[in-house]
Amino acid sequence: MAMDKTISRATVERLPIYYRELELAEEAGVQIISSSELGRRLEITPEQIRKDLVSFGQFGRKGIGYEVSALRNSVGKILGLNHRWRLAIIGAGNLGTALASYNFSALGFIVAALFDADPKIIGTEINNLRVYDFAKFKPIAGRKLIDIGVIAVPEIEAQDVADVLIKAGIRGIWNFASIKIETPPEVALINVDLTASLSVLSFYLARSSK
Amino acid sequence: MAMDKTISRATVERLPIYYRELELAEEAGVQIISSSELGRRLEITPEQIRKDLVSFGQFGRKGIGYEVSALRNSVGKILGLNHRWRLAIIGAGNLGTALASYNFSALGFIVAALFDADPKIIGTEINNLRVYDFAKFKPIAGRKLIDIGVIAVPEIEAQDVADVLIKAGIRGIWNFASIKIETPPEVALINVDLTASLSVLSFYLARSSK
Repeated sequence: MAMDKTISRATVERLPIYYRELELAEEAGVQIISSSELGRRLEITPEQIRKDLVSFGQFGRKGIGYEVSALRNSVGKILGLNHRWRLAIIGAGNLGTALASYNFSALGFIVAALFDADPKIIGTEINNLRVYDFAKFKPIAGRKLIDIGVIAVPEIEAQDVADVLIKAGIRGIWNFASIKIETPPEVALINVDLTASLSVLSFYLARSSK
Repeated sequence: MAMDKTISRATVERLPIYYRELELAEEAGVQIISSSELGRRLEITPEQIRKDLVSFGQFGRKGIGYEVSALRNSVGKILGLNHRWRLAIIGAGNLGTALASYNFSALGFIVAALFDADPKIIGTEINNLRVYDFAKFKPIAGRKLIDIGVIAVPEIEAQDVADVLIKAGIRGIWNFASIKIETPPEVALINVDLTASLSVLSFYLARSSK
């Protein structure tokens, strides 16, 4: 996967958390925020926040803090949220259909196409999106300017779908199949791991039932 | 939410990552692993790993490392994965149906019931699970020994559903609706934030297209 050698994955994963908290602060009318206050809200040490942000430039002023609106804007740009990424969902089953109606647009993501291999589904409309034949992925993805392929097919088909996406020149894959997918280094792959999130819930339940 | 004051949320969120990597190491026949090696694999500093684990006890031996199998077992217990948590999914639409067929059982989670309010869906079967009337949640959840309620309804209904779960004595809520839900401190709430995961992908795409 296309990892940036200088920025750790853990840092990258904290950026959306900073972004969301800054959005909330901005909506609440907060103009300046210190790393201590941001850290207190997020349960992250102020040192960690300063270290994460300094990887991308000089944002805050010593003894004063960060300008909320400017920092939210900068973090948004670092996260590429100024782009309007176009998603194609592969697999128009229950998961694909659920994702097609998910509200991604607040962060500028657009679901631009749905694909399936089932002749009974191809040509139908889901959430105002036509379902295209996955066999024609490359030309349609080109026409629809797809940036990101969302894998919402059964585990057993996931690698084959990924291979088609990669051959078609897709550089970003968001994988919902709970299986390890092989991708070349120039393709960014993010796996959605629902069991990790559920395990965190399990932790708190186990603690509280002691 | 039922936060453990002594353990930070960030630490808890790293535990499933340790667990999975230890599982992989165990399957590969690795018997002893150092915090440096674990850190290298996960892109987390060895100090962070040692600090996270020491919150729960003394696992490794200085200069030797951790016994992979014993540590995986301990982390699994800390995460409550020795319990067999029983889930009820509320909302038998596309998302609920997709979740009902997701493979959670590897980590010991069991989808034990599905609920919906739509008379057309109540009484049908999805993935061998009968859909029950959400109006009868409390007695059915009691009989089915439900631990965790999974909210898979539209945003506008999410808080009402949560209120019913809480009144019925459910202590763990896994929320897929992209809206902030209010819960009392004794209820553990985990929100599944798909946009955060998608933002990480956006980061790598933006970097690579520079």
